[in-house]
Formats: sequence, structure tokens, C-alpha cells
Amino acid sequence: MSFNTRNVLSEIPSYDVVEKDWPIKVNANECGMNLPPMVAERVMSRLSRIAFNRYPNEQYLALTEAIGRSFGLQPDNVLLGSGSSEIIEKVFYAFGGGRDRKIVYPWPSFSMYPIYAKAAEAEGVAFELSADDNYELDPKKFIDFVKKENPSLVVICNPNNPTGTVIKKSDVEYIAQNVDCALLIDEAYIDFDISESVTDVLLKYPNMMIARTFSKAFGLASARVGYMLASKSVVDIIGRAFMPYHMNVLSLVTADTAFTMRDEFIPRINMMISERKRMESELKKIDGIKVYESNTNFIFMNYDKAVQLNEALEGQGIGIRSFGNAPLLTNCIRISMGTREENDVWLKAVMDFVEASV
Amino acid sequence: MSFNTRNVLSEIPSYDVVEKDWPIKVNANECGMNLPPMVAERVMSRLSRIAFNRYPNEQYLALTEAIGRSFGLQPDNVLLGSGSSEIIEKVFYAFGGGRDRKIVYPWPSFSMYPIYAKAAEAEGVAFELSADDNYELDPKKFIDFVKKENPSLVVICNPNNPTGTVIKKSDVEYIAQNVDCALLIDEAYIDFDISESVTDVLLKYPNMMIARTFSKAFGLASARVGYMLASKSVVDIIGRAFMPYHMNVLSLVTADTAFTMRDEFIPRINMMISERKRMESELKKIDGIKVYESNTNFIFMNYDKAVQLNEALEGQGIGIRSFGNAPLLTNCIRISMGTREENDVWLKAVMDFVEASV
Repeated sequence: MSFNTRNVLSEIPSYDVVEKDWPIKVNANECGMNLPPMVAERVMSRLSRIAFNRYPNEQYLALTEAIGRSFGLQPDNVLLGSGSSEIIEKVFYAFGGGRDRKIVYPWPSFSMYPIYAKAAEAEGVAFELSADDNYELDPKKFIDFVKKENPSLVVICNPNNPTGTVIKKSDVEYIAQNVDCALLIDEAYIDFDISESVTDVLLKYPNMMIARTFSKAFGLASARVGYMLASKSVVDIIGRAFMPYHMNVLSLVTADTAFTMRDEFIPRINMMISERKRMESELKKIDGIKVYESNTNFIFMNYDKAVQLNEALEGQGIGIRSFGNAPLLTNCIRISMGTREENDVWLKAVMDFVEASV
Repeated sequence: MSFNTRNVLSEIPSYDVVEKDWPIKVNANECGMNLPPMVAERVMSRLSRIAFNRYPNEQYLALTEAIGRSFGLQPDNVLLGSGSSEIIEKVFYAFGGGRDRKIVYPWPSFSMYPIYAKAAEAEGVAFELSADDNYELDPKKFIDFVKKENPSLVVICNPNNPTGTVIKKSDVEYIAQNVDCALLIDEAYIDFDISESVTDVLLKYPNMMIARTFSKAFGLASARVGYMLASKSVVDIIGRAFMPYHMNVLSLVTADTAFTMRDEFIPRINMMISERKRMESELKKIDGIKVYESNTNFIFMNYDKAVQLNEALEGQGIGIRSFGNAPLLTNCIRISMGTREENDVWLKAVMDFVEASV
């Protein structure tokens, strides 16, 4: 019996692990709080009126209209996906399809980029960032690298996950002007440093796409809603990679409610930023921990006993993200901002561990 | 500026049409009723307790456990997708990836098969069914055709959409025994003729996959949940084509609730079947309309003024599916079962039109 699947499938990892239910969960850059009560109430009220038996229809257009309007764009400048994950997956698909087609991204970055590249049958090419440069991107060197590699797509995560570093808007524009291929700016964390977003200059660059998500600042990781902004012709061609009815009504209605009530999220976004600053300044006081400057809802640091620290925190029911000995990330740790109380708990646990280790 | 997308994208149609809000909507094989009140109440209660800010976690496993158990299978015999659409899309992807890779399906069938084949960069190959044979599949001829074409994947929609015809379970098994490639049985409509399902013999055929959906009998088209049943090794390899977090918590919880309370759906499934029988017998009385035998929640028929009839019904706010002059489907019409009252309305409209046309 022949069961002959596409070659790359066997090179893609399986994901079937159910994660431990950490009492303090600060490992996935989620928002630490459930929806603001007023938003939750409105979401439930709208969900209760859904025609569950009907295929999605006007709900997709309604959300693209609301998002487009907020950026001074049209609905057909907006493409929705199941999280920005699906946006990235489909953009990679669109620019993949052959070993001679390369996708270039600074690295370390979002861990899924190489896997999306693999699934798209493209060659994922990493432009290495260095801890010695605080993982900052040199735009000129990056452009030279891109010109040499001649990819079909360049992807920049800004601010970058997991390093937290931001690329200035002027540098992103400089890159856009100087690379002769499609350019995806993954702005999953931009709500925590909105001044560097390139949404307002998007239409100046016909090769530019911007991915955004409801999973972080909007606290809707459960619902899997993200979007892409681009010119109409780019939305049209990339949109063909998305099959009809790929978005469900429940998530569309939930995201639409959150987006319409987005002012309700500003206080908590500010709180997450101020908590990050507070934790950064506390961690910087600890000998042996190097804290990188972050413009996100998480902190990225290096500590030579990172693996042991991670184990110690796990033992106390605190889930953080340790990168073990991953290339370029040895002894690095990423911690998302929880509530003020949660942050106090993990900070104390970190301090206790370091103190006991000297 | 170079914006060089994968070639096939330009051959895939765009979908951005918002459908008219038909007062009587019987064009998409949806369930005509919203959720049973007890199920709706339980769904809302569970949705109100979601941690919207958290990524999906144990909800995926919970639903695969419930589904697996109901078929005497394990959770890792079950793969979930955003509707059976995503299951089909990813299975096609898994067996595509090159012009020499063919996907064979009887035709006419689900209109998306050729498009999924295109997106997967496979060659979609139609085995033509004939109106003269009432669109019934001859298993021997089909097997001969498959052997000649030597595809990587064979897909059979059973019962078939849009023709409503069913293939006997013994014939599906006969095909499974005689084709030397992967075999996907798309059982989207099987709840309306459960006796022909091959779920209970699935594990006898290592090349077999079965796709199911919550969109039809369970009336959850809005939520986009479907599943695939197969051996563990097949679920493992096909599962790699699905990216992490492709399912959202709201839909998972909704489908899990409906599945757990599936006995609540039996009366309405029986009602849809009896309505189909009632409508079939009424339509058969009308001169000039040929009604094909259906084992689904819709009726398929041929009428030489089908296009005009469709226009007349649209004028009365009744949305049906007319196939215009599509190859092999000229003058064919498909009508889903609505409520008894809705069915009475469209039946009268059909009768009035035919009477006025003679």
C-alpha cells in the first residue's frame, strides 16, 4: 500500500503536547488578564445572538471595515487570519514553492518562521543577530545580506520576539526602500511601542505587508484572530491562499467587539508597559543577570544558570520560557508580564534563586 | 519592485462576496435551525468561563477524546480542523506538491476539490459521473480509472454533494481494497445515512482517512469545526501540515458541547430526513422535474428551466443553488431542507413557477 506524502511533511515537527496548567503562567507572551468586564459582557451578549447554523457571511467584512477605518484604509486593504500565525503561514506559502525561493529573516526571532518556510517549501535563511550587539539589527548589513541572498520574501518581527528589541520606523522604511522583494513586517507586539509602527506609511511601499494580532495587547489568544494590512492588489493575491470560510463567526464577533471597544484596553496596555519597566529595573539590580531592553509585554534576559533557574521556578508552579542551549540563545530566558501580583511572585523567586546560588 | 508569488495563486479564485441575506436560505446545505435550546444554554455557559487571554490548550485534546471514544478509537486517531474544509485542504496539501502528483475524485462533487488540488500544486483529475446513470459511481470502472491514473490520493464524497447519491459501504471497502494510494472518504453528509459510514472498518485500511463535519447535522457551520479519523501514524503525518493553535477555544468548546449532547440532535436529523422524503415525493409529482434519490439534507434535481426558476425564487427571497450551465450539471438545482414551513414556501413557489411555464 502506497501512502506517499509530500517530502517536507516528515521534517515538520508534530504538536500535540498539552501544556501544564501553571499557577503563574508567564511563558507565552499572553495578556495576564481576561477581557475587561464591559467587553466580556458585550461579547457574551453578541455571541448569544449568533445563528450557529449559518456559515460565516457579513461578519468577516464587518471586521475588515472596522480595522481598515481605524488605519484610514479600506476593507480590501485588510485580510483576516486565524491569528497572525495563519497570516504568516499563508504569506510564506505565497512566496514559497521551490528550493530556489528563499525567505530571509533576522534570527533569533519567532520560532515558527523556519517551520512555516519548511511547510511552504521555501528555503528559510537566517540573518544572525548577535548578543554582543544586544540583538540589534544593522539595517545596512541586513540590506546587503538580502541583496546577496535574493529572496522572494523578507520578514521582520518588530518589536522582535524573543529578544524584545525594536527597529526604528525610519529603519524599517529604509529597508523597505532597499530590498527588491516582498516584505512582511510582523507587528505582533507593536501595541507596546506603537510609535514605531509603519501602518501609516504602508501604502508608500507596494511590497510591504503588515501582520497584526488580537492575541497579545487585546488578550484574545483563545480566539485566534489576526490580520494583514497591505495594498488592495497584495490583499487580493495573498487572499487567494486562504480558503473560503477559514474564519469562524464566534472569533470574528469576539474580535470585532474588542476592536470596537479598543479604548477599554489602553489602561491595561499601559499597565503592562509600566510593569515591564518596573521588572526591568528590579532585575537589573541582580548581579549576573543581563536584561536586554524590551519594547514589548515581555522581558528577555541572560543568566548563566538559566536552565537551573527555570527548573527552580517550575518547581514553584511558575512557567517561564527558557531557551536552554538553542543556538544564539544559550542561557536566555523570556518572561511575559503577568499581573502586578504575579510579577512580584516570580521576581521574588528569581531573587531567591540567585541569592542561594552565589 | 519584485513581488513574485507562487504561480498557482493567480489561478485560484478570490472569495470576498458577502451573500445576500435570503429570508428563506436553502442554498448552502446548512441546518435550517439554530442550536437546540438546551445545547445553546450549555454552550453560552461554557463560553462565559473561557480564559479569552490564553492560547488553546487542553480543549483540543478534550474534543479528540470525546470523538475518539464515540467511535471506539483513541484521541490520536482524531485530527481537528476548521471545518472539514481545512481537513480536506491539508490532506490535499499532504498529497500534492508536484505536477506528477494526481488527486482523483468522482465528478461532479464538492466544488472545492479542484481548488484545493490547485492550491496543493497537485493535478486534480475528475472521474466523470453521468446523469444517465443517476450520477451513481461504478466501483469497478472507478478502480480501473484510478489504476490508470496512478494518483497519490483518491477522494470520495459519500453521500455525494451536490448529487445526493450514496455509495454502499461494501463498495467503499471494495475501493479501499483495490486502490494503491491514500484514500479520503468525505462523510460530511453521512449523518443523514449513517448506515453507509465506514468509521467502524476504518482501521482495517491503513490508507483510509475519513473527514467529518459539525457544519451539517450538528448545525454548527458558524464555528468551523470538522475532524478526520485515521490510524495513528496517518494522523501523525497529516497533523504536521496543521500549524500549532490552528483551532480556537470558542469553536472547540462549542463543538465539544454539541458533541457531548449529541442525542439532542437526533430528532432534528430525523426531521430533516423526513422532510427530504416529503419534498422528494411532492417534487416527483411535478411534470418536467427529475428528482434524484438523495441520502442527505438536500434535494438534487434537474429541470429544463432551472435558471429561470432560480431567478423567480430569488425574486421571492428564496435562495437555492442553481448550477447554471456548469459541465455535467446543466439545469441542475440543489435545495437544502429548511424547516417544514420554509419547505412549504419554496415548494409552492416551485409549483407556481412550473404551472405558469407550461
